[in-house]
Amino acid sequence: KLTVQDVSEFKNLVENPELAIIESEDEIAPYNVDWIGKIKGDCKLVIRPSSTEEVSKVLKHCNHRQIAVVPQGGNTGLVGGSVPIKDEIVISMNRMNRIHGFDNTYNIVRTDAGVILENLMEYLKPFGYMPPVDLGARGSCHIGGNLATNAGGMKFLKYNSMHANTIGLKAVLADGTILDDMKCLRKDNTGYDLKQLFIGSEGTLGIITEAAILCPKIPSDSNVALLACNSFEDVTKILVKAKEILGTNLSAIEYFDNACNRVVSSVLKITNPLGDDHRFYVLTEASDYGLPTPVASSDDQPASGEQGNLVEEKLFALFDSISDLIVDGVVAQDSSQTNAIWKTREGIAEGFVK
Amino acid sequence: KLTVQDVSEFKNLVENPELAIIESEDEIAPYNVDWIGKIKGDCKLVIRPSSTEEVSKVLKHCNHRQIAVVPQGGNTGLVGGSVPIKDEIVISMNRMNRIHGFDNTYNIVRTDAGVILENLMEYLKPFGYMPPVDLGARGSCHIGGNLATNAGGMKFLKYNSMHANTIGLKAVLADGTILDDMKCLRKDNTGYDLKQLFIGSEGTLGIITEAAILCPKIPSDSNVALLACNSFEDVTKILVKAKEILGTNLSAIEYFDNACNRVVSSVLKITNPLGDDHRFYVLTEASDYGLPTPVASSDDQPASGEQGNLVEEKLFALFDSISDLIVDGVVAQDSSQTNAIWKTREGIAEGFVK
Repeated sequence: KLTVQDVSEFKNLVENPELAIIESEDEIAPYNVDWIGKIKGDCKLVIRPSSTEEVSKVLKHCNHRQIAVVPQGGNTGLVGGSVPIKDEIVISMNRMNRIHGFDNTYNIVRTDAGVILENLMEYLKPFGYMPPVDLGARGSCHIGGNLATNAGGMKFLKYNSMHANTIGLKAVLADGTILDDMKCLRKDNTGYDLKQLFIGSEGTLGIITEAAILCPKIPSDSNVALLACNSFEDVTKILVKAKEILGTNLSAIEYFDNACNRVVSSVLKITNPLGDDHRFYVLTEASDYGLPTPVASSDDQPASGEQGNLVEEKLFALFDSISDLIVDGVVAQDSSQTNAIWKTREGIAEGFVK
Repeated sequence: KLTVQDVSEFKNLVENPELAIIESEDEIAPYNVDWIGKIKGDCKLVIRPSSTEEVSKVLKHCNHRQIAVVPQGGNTGLVGGSVPIKDEIVISMNRMNRIHGFDNTYNIVRTDAGVILENLMEYLKPFGYMPPVDLGARGSCHIGGNLATNAGGMKFLKYNSMHANTIGLKAVLADGTILDDMKCLRKDNTGYDLKQLFIGSEGTLGIITEAAILCPKIPSDSNVALLACNSFEDVTKILVKAKEILGTNLSAIEYFDNACNRVVSSVLKITNPLGDDHRFYVLTEASDYGLPTPVASSDDQPASGEQGNLVEEKLFALFDSISDLIVDGVVAQDSSQTNAIWKTREGIAEGFVK
């Protein structure tokens, strides 16, 4: 049971207790409930450490006093993993939001776990690189949460999992021990790859505080198609054909059924360019790296430029090869159409919650 | 100490002792020495199990009797990890050489650990897929050894590590316990990802007996360039530029210095197309997936066909962008030139050993 002495001890352990310790019920409220609003905890104290060392000190005290803890990232999970169920204290990572640097030779970014995915994206964009993971919650979710849950996301097919792209990791075990495995060498094979255990372990083995992440180059050409078909069997046939024709240029493929689409359409008022009457929809994104443009272009929308034609051609070639499987299809002609198509997929979770 | 009783017990544990148990000194000899011929063991018994269950029974007995064991794959390692140093018995995986099947929808191959990498390549070729790893020892090394050592190989840059591409794994612990994690679902996030610990653990945690491996589509277009430059600093600058221009179409980049080249040239009589006088050589391979050919072509050498032009153009664009860094360069014009260029790199280890 959390005591007044515990709280004052926590205040001693952190550098800025006025920022790090939240005791007011109102301020705690959002930390107590998940994004869906389905699971509610009864947490009385939120601690927001600003460094790995502070996480270590806090966990050491919790371990000593047997105080239950829930680590929390962006709290965007849909399965209740990020919120307390009883009176556990929440250790929120939202103050550990520094990006430490990007190594342009090896394409590895070093970052705090509490950095919001979209901020990491924005940071990497000027270098021409991007995080290997992307998902609808990008504006709120933390890279640390992506790691702890081994988030797949929409580009998983091409860029693979967090297991594949995590080069280094720093984590704090329940007793406060710091596991420092912040390697920045892709081929480092020394010793057991302990960091892999933390990836996907949902905070049960420790709290991930920092990571070194391998980042892919942003494709110069990218385009998206939305197809409609009549059965799940056809969806898998389209998947096989898309991989056959697009190879690793296939950067995303997602499907959703009529029920999902109806929710997005009726609740979020997002219009599906193929209409709402099809049984299954398949979203397919292709991307590639075209020849470098001799003169820098002011147009940063690849889908509408000349470069975009490369993958557009490939998407149409895919259409040709699956014409017997699809009942309708559209290839985005500009970035607003691209966004509209992606929203039909990304809105599904929100549509069902609203 | 290994006794006569142990040997007869091992013979009882396996189905075909005449194939599985090697006692003759002559036949044991190749299992006792590494590929370099530098490290020699004094092993008196080699066991070649034919199934995970046999590996389990053998290890259980070894554990009970405290008999030291060295697991051995293709025995192609260059660091002495695959041979005994004293009188450990060798458990060779070379009879566990069955490929169990390829799932064309999810591109996952299920295979025994003792399958030779090149055999796995040949098996996958008709499907249009390939193993995610490739290295000079492909004709002898086992996929199980690639896993146990987390082999990087020449396509590591594009296809990533065995951590990234292993979907399922079966391994036998030292006491004979079978860890069956032969999942074939890419996004399976249930539980801790224990299989990752075995990857790169060099047989110290157990013997890998089976695996499910994610395989990339064979690129339709592929070409290779060899460049020469004057300093290691220029090598890293070329690397950065190659990634910038080729993105994930960069499927391999390797460098070697003049000393390496001289050995390959003088010992193996392999001719470097750029001559032997440069300080540093950089081999760069680009690959991509072109538009599907409307009519099947009888020419299976992408580098010489029309499709090959796609990546050839990109390689020349790379040349243009690094013209101040390179002193000479050549792009392969056909598959024999491609092979010749690759041999200048692949021959290095052999050249130094001979």
